[in-house]
Order: sequence, then C-alpha cells, then structure tokens
Amino acid sequence: MPIRPPYLLFLGDGDQAKTATGVAYWRPELCAGQLRMPGGSVDLNLPDLSPEQAAARGVKTLLIGVAPHGGQLPEAWTALIVEALQAGLDVAAGLHTRIAGVAEIASAAKAHGRTLFDVRHPDRNFAVASGKRRPGRRLLTVGTDCEVGKMFTALALERELRRRGRDADFRATGQTGIFIAGRGVSVDAVVSDFVAGAAEWLSPANEPDHWDLIEGQGSIFHPAYAGVTLSLIHGSQPDALVLCHDASRRRVVGYEDYPIQPFAVCIDENTRAARLTNPDARLIGMSVNTSTLGSAEASAYLAELEDDLKLPCVDPVRTGVGRLADLLEAWT
Amino acid sequence: MPIRPPYLLFLGDGDQAKTATGVAYWRPELCAGQLRMPGGSVDLNLPDLSPEQAAARGVKTLLIGVAPHGGQLPEAWTALIVEALQAGLDVAAGLHTRIAGVAEIASAAKAHGRTLFDVRHPDRNFAVASGKRRPGRRLLTVGTDCEVGKMFTALALERELRRRGRDADFRATGQTGIFIAGRGVSVDAVVSDFVAGAAEWLSPANEPDHWDLIEGQGSIFHPAYAGVTLSLIHGSQPDALVLCHDASRRRVVGYEDYPIQPFAVCIDENTRAARLTNPDARLIGMSVNTSTLGSAEASAYLAELEDDLKLPCVDPVRTGVGRLADLLEAWT
Repeated sequence: MPIRPPYLLFLGDGDQAKTATGVAYWRPELCAGQLRMPGGSVDLNLPDLSPEQAAARGVKTLLIGVAPHGGQLPEAWTALIVEALQAGLDVAAGLHTRIAGVAEIASAAKAHGRTLFDVRHPDRNFAVASGKRRPGRRLLTVGTDCEVGKMFTALALERELRRRGRDADFRATGQTGIFIAGRGVSVDAVVSDFVAGAAEWLSPANEPDHWDLIEGQGSIFHPAYAGVTLSLIHGSQPDALVLCHDASRRRVVGYEDYPIQPFAVCIDENTRAARLTNPDARLIGMSVNTSTLGSAEASAYLAELEDDLKLPCVDPVRTGVGRLADLLEAWT
Repeated sequence: MPIRPPYLLFLGDGDQAKTATGVAYWRPELCAGQLRMPGGSVDLNLPDLSPEQAAARGVKTLLIGVAPHGGQLPEAWTALIVEALQAGLDVAAGLHTRIAGVAEIASAAKAHGRTLFDVRHPDRNFAVASGKRRPGRRLLTVGTDCEVGKMFTALALERELRRRGRDADFRATGQTGIFIAGRGVSVDAVVSDFVAGAAEWLSPANEPDHWDLIEGQGSIFHPAYAGVTLSLIHGSQPDALVLCHDASRRRVVGYEDYPIQPFAVCIDENTRAARLTNPDARLIGMSVNTSTLGSAEASAYLAELEDDLKLPCVDPVRTGVGRLADLLEAWT
C-alpha cells in the first residue's frame, strides 16, 4: 500500500533533515507543509503547519525522516505522532526503531483508523529470487561508495525520461527514496536470503520499452554492505548500469583502510556481477557529484574522465543526465 | 549460549533426516538416542528413547532438525516438544517457523524453566562489519553451488587439524552446522546489512596460529544467494579458501538456466572477492564430492583436476583432507 500524499514533513530538532530535504527537492508538489521542533534549524520554506492545520488543508501523511539524537524516540516526538494520528493523518517513519512498536502510537493508530508505515522495516515477505529473465528495461545505479548520488541519479533519469514522454519509474530501495516514491523496499533491512528476491519483486516484468530506474545501495567494494549491493544487482537484472561517484571521495566513508577503487575496476566488476543474471548488461556512463569543485574544475574533471573511460560522464546537477537519457531512449 | 549436549535426535516421520544424520555422523559422542515418529523410515542406529527415558540418561536437549511436510508444525510434534520440556529437556529447532512462537511450547518452556533454541533465527543483533583486520587464521569453504560439501569439508579440516594437535574450531553458519557445533549463526537469516558483521563476530580475533574453519554458504554465482556468500567472504576475512564441488553437478540446483561456472573462474572470482578485506587471501585447493563416481573414475577425476589447476584436489570421504591440512599446518 503506497504512502498517501500530500505530506507534512517533520524536520526534527537538529541542523539537518536529509530525508525531508530530499522529498521536498524531488516531490515539491506533494509537500504541503513542514513541522519544526524547538531548537531545530532546518527550514524548507514550506508553510509551518500543526497536524490539525495540515489535516484541514488535505494533508494525508506525516513523514518522519529524521532520527532523534541517541536513537530513542523522545516523549515529545511520540506526543506529536499521536497528535497527528488524532488529527486524521497517517504517519510514515524511516527510523531504525519501529514507531508501530511504541504502544501509545500503535493504540492511537488503531483508535483513529490510521496507517503506520515503518519504511525501514519491510512489511511483507519476499520469495527467494527466481533468476528468470523478465521483460521491460531496467537501469540500476551503482556506486564507488555509499552516499555518492545513486538515488539522485535514478530520480534525475526518471524525471528526464518522463519529460521526454517516455514510460519510466523510479524504484526506491532506501528510506528517502521510499518517501519520494511513496513505495519501495528498504533492501538493507531484508533478511539476506531474500534480498535478490525483493529486488525482483521491486522491478517486475513490464512493457518492453518501459524503463525502471532502480536506486542502488552501497557498493560491491564496501567491506560491510557489498553483499546487499550484489543481491540488488542480481535481482534487478539491469540492462544498464550507471556508476555514481563523489569527486571529493578518496576512501570509503567510515572505513579509512579502504580506498575508493579505480573507476575501470568498478566498471569491470559491476558489469561482471550484473552479467550473471543479465548477460547483456552494460555500464553506460558515470554520474559524478562535483559540488566540491569550482565550475571550470568540474568541467575539466568530467572531460578528463570521459576521455579516460570513453563513456559519457555527467553531473546530474551541473550538466543534467540528458546524455545518459539519450542512450536509454535509443536502447536496442 | 551454546546448545547443551548430550542430544536426543528427533527423526520425524519422513524418509530422510539430513540434519540429524549430519549431527550423528560428526558428533556421535554427543548423540544419546533417537526419537522416531510413526511412518518414519530413518534409523540412525541409536537407542530409541522417549523424552523421559532420555532425560533419565542425562540427555540435555532434544534436536528438531527435520521440517514437517507443508511447513506447519503438526499437533503431534507440538505435543512431543511439550513432553520433552516437561521431562526437563531444552529443545533446539532449525525450522523456518520459530518453535518459540508456538504458544503451547513457549508456555511449557517457561513453566519448566527450559531453553528454546530456534537456530535458523538469530537471537542477537550484530554490528555492521568494521572491515578491520584481526589476528588468528581463518579458512572459509566456498562452493560452485549450494550443497556441495562446504560444511563437510570445514568439519573434516577441524577433525584433521585437531587430530594433529592443532588449535582449530569449526564455525557454523547453517542449521546443521549449528547443531553440530552447539553454536553459530544462520547467516542467511540475518538482515542483509549485518551479515558481514555477523561473520566478523562468528570468527573473532584469536591466537596467531589458531585456525577457524568457517562453513561457507551458497556461491558467488548463485542468482539468489550470492549476496549472502559475498558478505560471508568479506566478514570472514579468510586467509585460505577451499573450493567445494559435487562432481555430478552441471547446473545450479533449482536454476536450470545457470550452469556451474568453470573452476578457474570460481577460483579467480572468490579469491578476488576475499582480497577486498584480506589482501593475502588465497585459494589453496578443491574438495570434491565424487560419490557418484566409481573408485577408479574418482581417482582419475581428481588427478585430472589437480593437473589442470595445479592445486591439491581431494574428496573428504575418499581421500581425506590431509593434503589441505598440510598446507594449513605449514602456513606462513
């Protein structure tokens, strides 16, 4: 069951709210307001609304994307979630602890007939992957590390293909992506035996010229998460891969002993992994976050990369993903 | 908390009981009796004991390794488990459904102060893998497919090294292995983000000349389970890999579109995967189940393989694993 828009975005009490920021960036038309806590410094320039005010304006769901300090749900947050349920809103959370596991919240949801979404916790069982080929075209973003633009690139490609009148769907595999798409599977929370099966379920058989743009996770060179990445590659059976990177990244975040692998190695290994379940898979280009570089520097970086790899290399913010979309439109 | 021996082995009502057979084969000294159901044709030549008789002989735990037809726990099995708890036995099960989730069983365990082990369901949380090198030596068995002798080979190496007076521990990653070792982690049931972390936990830092012999799972060429395998490889940080195979296997079981990969490819890809977290990892030989071949044929098969690969190739039943153990003893 998809999460129902429009949304009221909860921004918490800290100095960032990445998930809400992502939802507001990619789906401004679904964001009716923001809900800030005392002490918080994030402002997405949306109307400040209480749950009651939001409900009166037709909001359907309160989105909780920001995690509290220390992990435990503070009493004030619980009270606010209960208030939202009483006002008639559903509540969708992407926290490690399930809001549905908090007795007060669960009973308020029941009493008011509201739905709770704990998007980090899959609400269904998945079959073991079949490995069988299925129709429809699929692109998966892969990365040199975590947080290098895999979600952003898949969303940018969805937007670009739809702008061109093409049939395309972003497929979300993490909490922010799920809030943006209103549905998806947080694959890193799936029991390991079923991750490839979950990926098959997430990007099912489709029309021959339909593109699924699947949000990648982790990296096949990540010492903790490579298995998740590999299962996602195998289950997605991608026709096309795009390698995402952050131009400032030298080492795997949080793993100082692990350098970012050379791009040629990344391309080779990801392609080889994908070919197990789709022998025609190919890596079509790179998508690089060059935000730490100046404009001229970024252009030179992308040009040099392109010269080295003989593949289109874009920055989805600076150059857009049009050249990658061209390849998908012309796919044979 | 380890499962306490000696064991009473439940053999079910079918014509095989692979888990119990494995436990009786590898740990005969821990198996005090068997418990058969009407209609079952398995006989492990152990004394037939009721739970009461077993308790009187000092048995501590009833092992349920065999799954009922259809998946649901039949009433007769529930009654028997309750009887065992009443008799003072703990109960360890390797079923997909948790016995601790059956109200009658849970309340009997509580009433009699007994412990229930659902070995397919991890009873603890694991940290995300650190990727940090740790002392001690580790061998991981990898395979060309599922069910090709990975557990058997690791156990055979443990037995052989211990026979030689070496410090070595089998590390179990699946239900039968856990019953045999009395502890372990069913890695395929761990949430995907934490599988490499679970593998780090399972084979912790140890004395420099101590060998952990880690039971592999799946195969990195398996369309459904490769991610589990890769996480296990990364978290185990193996110094040595042994490639296991069944000489009669041509295709991945249950996946007719997926041929078994050439051995050279298997060796290359598994070694490369292992070198992410342990740059010194090497594949030291093959362990092949040749039981479908005649004796002369098996010898010729192993000799030819060895000639091709320039690595020792053994059958743990026919030739023993002595030549692989030699390499581990001489490890530098």
